[in-house]
Amino acid sequence: MASGKHAGFAAATAVELLDVADGAGGPASAGSVHRYRAEIHDGWDIGGNANGGYVLAIAGRAMAAAMGRPPLSVTGHYLAPSPPGACEVTVTTVRSGGRLGTCTASLVQDGRELIRVLGTFGTPVDNGHRYVAGEPPELPPYRECVARSEVAPTGEGMPVAGLMDRLAVRMHPDALSFVTGAPTGRAETSGWFAFAQEEPIDEIGLLLVADAMAPAVFNSGLPAGWVPTVELTVHVRARPAPGPLRCTFRTRFVAGGALEEDGEVWDSAGQLVAQSRQLALTPRH
Amino acid sequence: MASGKHAGFAAATAVELLDVADGAGGPASAGSVHRYRAEIHDGWDIGGNANGGYVLAIAGRAMAAAMGRPPLSVTGHYLAPSPPGACEVTVTTVRSGGRLGTCTASLVQDGRELIRVLGTFGTPVDNGHRYVAGEPPELPPYRECVARSEVAPTGEGMPVAGLMDRLAVRMHPDALSFVTGAPTGRAETSGWFAFAQEEPIDEIGLLLVADAMAPAVFNSGLPAGWVPTVELTVHVRARPAPGPLRCTFRTRFVAGGALEEDGEVWDSAGQLVAQSRQLALTPRH
Repeated sequence: MASGKHAGFAAATAVELLDVADGAGGPASAGSVHRYRAEIHDGWDIGGNANGGYVLAIAGRAMAAAMGRPPLSVTGHYLAPSPPGACEVTVTTVRSGGRLGTCTASLVQDGRELIRVLGTFGTPVDNGHRYVAGEPPELPPYRECVARSEVAPTGEGMPVAGLMDRLAVRMHPDALSFVTGAPTGRAETSGWFAFAQEEPIDEIGLLLVADAMAPAVFNSGLPAGWVPTVELTVHVRARPAPGPLRCTFRTRFVAGGALEEDGEVWDSAGQLVAQSRQLALTPRH
Repeated sequence: MASGKHAGFAAATAVELLDVADGAGGPASAGSVHRYRAEIHDGWDIGGNANGGYVLAIAGRAMAAAMGRPPLSVTGHYLAPSPPGACEVTVTTVRSGGRLGTCTASLVQDGRELIRVLGTFGTPVDNGHRYVAGEPPELPPYRECVARSEVAPTGEGMPVAGLMDRLAVRMHPDALSFVTGAPTGRAETSGWFAFAQEEPIDEIGLLLVADAMAPAVFNSGLPAGWVPTVELTVHVRARPAPGPLRCTFRTRFVAGGALEEDGEVWDSAGQLVAQSRQLALTPRH
């Protein structure tokens, strides 16, 4: 498989079906196993290890293919760092209902499992109930925000240039306070998310968005450093309308060696398209 | 097994090891399978189906036993309603590290899988980093709050008396606005949580706490009704100090047939002990 040095997101998360072992009720029934070949592409990494959202997106692509439905709620537990290279995703159907289906996925590279995923796929029936107690973050216009690829490599000492070349993330100026050495003291970050070359963002893309910005905790004033994700859950709330997404991430509790980061992702139509929460270990440095 | 009509939480979530199939590296290694016998006890239900947090707690008890560690992050996907009766929990080790271990669990009753769970167990190294941007909910003293068992059966038309006899939940007066027919319009609820007879609350108990109050969305003014949980994630942030817990739950987005509910649980020492988020389908009525 080509190394995908300049592959877009769809190509960099592509999966190829190897085989299917039917469950008791056929290829879509509980117990069926779909095996996919995939590749962790070079360039979607932080310091040589693939971004956690990107790895979740590869698994999510395979799960969505096996279930024939887009993700609704997906949880990944991270088991090992993810270097570039070929991998295999095994998707096992847990339950296939009329509208929603649940499955697990295991992504294995060279005999080592990198991530285990559990998710429910499909689209709920919209009975029209609506209650919204939140709004998109206030951001300067896309072109006035700061391209992360311009500032991060020097300021933060971490080689994020690879990943940031694949993305067209633009940060709120306050969100990069940790780079200047004068952190706001608030563990919050926000900005615009887009793929390079205006590639459309589908539901699978939302799995990456949830982990694409610098950790919010970096702006808290606590020491920055590697923040290993234990678990990342993404709820897909709607399919995004075209255009860059507005994102906000916040950490409220750092204690006992762990922290959570909650994210909200909004589309150009002002609609909440995803919520995320991850549990991570506190920065090692 | 006795029906456990008056069993406390520990007894009602007890698991008994049936057998262990070792993984490649022994009983604690990846691929090992622990099978447990358990029972969904009568009386922990809403209208005949066991509370989702209670079912998650049974699975979590088995997972913690297999891993020899308390839960850190646990996600359950609900597959079918859970009537009382004997069940079996199969725990498969995904990864067993020095400090953290990841496993899956499947809870099956009469050949039907009721819940699939993925979790990481263990306690992070506390490197002393601390940042807290939140505080426990303001609640009247425990004895001045409203015992849910007194009001719910008549007001809401749902037979929650069974579950509420097992718990000593006391609600903030505002949290039961839906019962009076004059909802606050805010999808929030809060109150005190304790088990009946002051039974201590361990980390497994926190899995139940996360789902033990009436849905916050009931106070929004939207029609109340059955709110089926698709997915529930609980992050255990600390082992609770003795005494009742202060809990707050909030729904911010109801749209597209789904809603999230975020919970925070605080102990008597003023420490955040759990965060929860669930994705549920909007009330059917």
